[in-house]
Amino acid sequence: MNFKLNDLPERSIKPRQKGLTMVMDKGLSLRQVEDFLDVAGVHTDIVKLGWSTSHVTPRLKEKLELYRSAGIPTYFGGTLFEAFTVRNQFEDYQRVLDEYGMEYAEVSDGSMDIEHDIKCDYIRKLSKQVTVISEVGSKDATKIFAPYKWIKLMQAEIEAGSWKVIAEAREGGNVGIYRGTGEVREGLVDEILTQIPSERIIWEAPQKEQQVWFIKLIGSNVNLGNIAPAEVIPLETIRLGLRGDTFDFFLGK
Amino acid sequence: MNFKLNDLPERSIKPRQKGLTMVMDKGLSLRQVEDFLDVAGVHTDIVKLGWSTSHVTPRLKEKLELYRSAGIPTYFGGTLFEAFTVRNQFEDYQRVLDEYGMEYAEVSDGSMDIEHDIKCDYIRKLSKQVTVISEVGSKDATKIFAPYKWIKLMQAEIEAGSWKVIAEAREGGNVGIYRGTGEVREGLVDEILTQIPSERIIWEAPQKEQQVWFIKLIGSNVNLGNIAPAEVIPLETIRLGLRGDTFDFFLGK
Amino acid sequence: MNFKLNDLPERSIKPRQKGLTMVMDKGLSLRQVEDFLDVAGVHTDIVKLGWSTSHVTPRLKEKLELYRSAGIPTYFGGTLFEAFTVRNQFEDYQRVLDEYGMEYAEVSDGSMDIEHDIKCDYIRKLSKQVTVISEVGSKDATKIFAPYKWIKLMQAEIEAGSWKVIAEAREGGNVGIYRGTGEVREGLVDEILTQIPSERIIWEAPQKEQQVWFIKLIGSNVNLGNIAPAEVIPLETIRLGLRGDTFDFFLGK
Repeated sequence: MNFKLNDLPERSIKPRQKGLTMVMDKGLSLRQVEDFLDVAGVHTDIVKLGWSTSHVTPRLKEKLELYRSAGIPTYFGGTLFEAFTVRNQFEDYQRVLDEYGMEYAEVSDGSMDIEHDIKCDYIRKLSKQVTVISEVGSKDATKIFAPYKWIKLMQAEIEAGSWKVIAEAREGGNVGIYRGTGEVREGLVDEILTQIPSERIIWEAPQKEQQVWFIKLIGSNVNLGNIAPAEVIPLETIRLGLRGDTFDFFLGK
Repeated sequence: MNFKLNDLPERSIKPRQKGLTMVMDKGLSLRQVEDFLDVAGVHTDIVKLGWSTSHVTPRLKEKLELYRSAGIPTYFGGTLFEAFTVRNQFEDYQRVLDEYGMEYAEVSDGSMDIEHDIKCDYIRKLSKQVTVISEVGSKDATKIFAPYKWIKLMQAEIEAGSWKVIAEAREGGNVGIYRGTGEVREGLVDEILTQIPSERIIWEAPQKEQQVWFIKLIGSNVNLGNIAPAEVIPLETIRLGLRGDTFDFFLGK
Repeated sequence: MNFKLNDLPERSIKPRQKGLTMVMDKGLSLRQVEDFLDVAGVHTDIVKLGWSTSHVTPRLKEKLELYRSAGIPTYFGGTLFEAFTVRNQFEDYQRVLDEYGMEYAEVSDGSMDIEHDIKCDYIRKLSKQVTVISEVGSKDATKIFAPYKWIKLMQAEIEAGSWKVIAEAREGGNVGIYRGTGEVREGLVDEILTQIPSERIIWEAPQKEQQVWFIKLIGSNVNLGNIAPAEVIPLETIRLGLRGDTFDFFLGK
């Protein structure tokens, strides 16, 4: 923080359990990772290599090492887990995690259909190997769950060993907890929060209006995910009440 | 200019009073600033560090120095002025401007409510310290001024010492002089131009269609602002009638 | 490819006649070109310097040399050809192509009105000098051709010497083969494909939904163009059935 501004909302500090900013890297080059870390690393808690982009990214080990040396954990998007699992290659996936020195992994079922019990089994198995983040919600806009279902799924995944559960939105921010227009399904979020502690959830919120909405609901230290690298600095100002959208909101609090 | 193309519209040259391209940097790293300057510095007149992003940007002094050594002036977005002022820290803000060697400052009231007389007092005070750019229009989409009001505000701010007045649009281009859809409020712009010389106004125009509209109305050498770094080269082609949107428009003129 | 995933759809390999990814560079700096090549060069077949951006890009020869040394051909957008031609400077354009060592050129009439016979004459002339890519479709959203017209134009241009014909969409993906909303004019595409071999066509498809639509229609190895540099890695995953959008589609094929 460069200036002495009074009465800013308090921000948690790294390593954080709440107030996480999870960034989606969907194909940065090594030098672009360096650029990102240089300006936004201090505000970033964890980086996801979006869906299966890691499969087609050259010099992947060097890239992971760049994040590692900056102290920022990374994980492969859940679609990579699904691509292995749907092909009966789950053990191969476990070997990949070891080979690349991954400390986190995502378990999701956004693109494939599996029984929820089986998903929880994968969470249990992987949580012996790495820290598991699991994702609830389909990438298919036509599959809409009722709130009680979201809660049941999240609870079961936390019990199975997930460190955090992610509420699905995709890169676009137009499925899962959002309507096709990007608008938050507010009743759904409210109901989830009656049962699941907010620090256990990472809300995917790629659009600015979505970030603003969650910050107004839960506060500066809400966990937000799928943030584009170039939006980390802007997001930090929204968390601090230093952008028009939350300027009034935090004054006098 | 690399090629000899006949009959291109005439462009003003730097340092410009009209035909300005004002770029919004919302969180570039040092090397990203170098990249930007390398390809677009020659077409850029002034850079705004968007809203309060300067507060959370690491190595800010080095960043400002990069722009300075390229001969491109910078200023902090008006929201930073407002964040200090609303906290009764205006004198602190003046010290910040000195400490960082700023030669320009923005005075705005897009996020806070103040009497216009008081805003003009701030313009008067700051214009003794730096070159002042002031912004008219609220970031709140529900606050819509009538044209005569825009004119009155702009005139008063110019009299108070503003070098240029900015017509508000935000990063998104969907408030102030635009409707929520991004469409220009044409009658408003026409009426403003009957009273305020166009070279005194910087029109925030982040969207391509908005840039095209103003170039067709006012010409190649209209002052445009909130241009994203990657859009400076595209904008320059629009000003020169070398993109589809203005290709016909400038032919035979 | 980093991992051993079974049953992925087969991708053609460079140098390709089908499955091309044509990228639009609309003003990258030299170092940004290096970054792009580092991560996405292996997945890129050809780069267009969008419309006339080459005219206002500093250090153009160095930039072209960067692409050349990575083995990726480049060409100037068709609007540059039109800007010269409409000014009766076609011979100057031919000299520019030589001076910059270009091996490809685009012939288009998206912004100017010329007889189609004359357009084909230009294709014939230029195809003696370079490999010609020609573009069908207007940048003007109000000019809509019937399918038989598209076919007739494409056939004539291929006969005149075009290596590939491009189906126009602009950077935005909202004209030509698309409706203003970005939706594909499906009947048009189907009808074109009854007469023109798909490997002779490059479909401009800047939006993800457009890429997905063509990959589902024609397969992994469809030629797609106007891909933004940062979208090459994502596109490659869509071609391979490794993003949610095509995950199901390729399974079991």
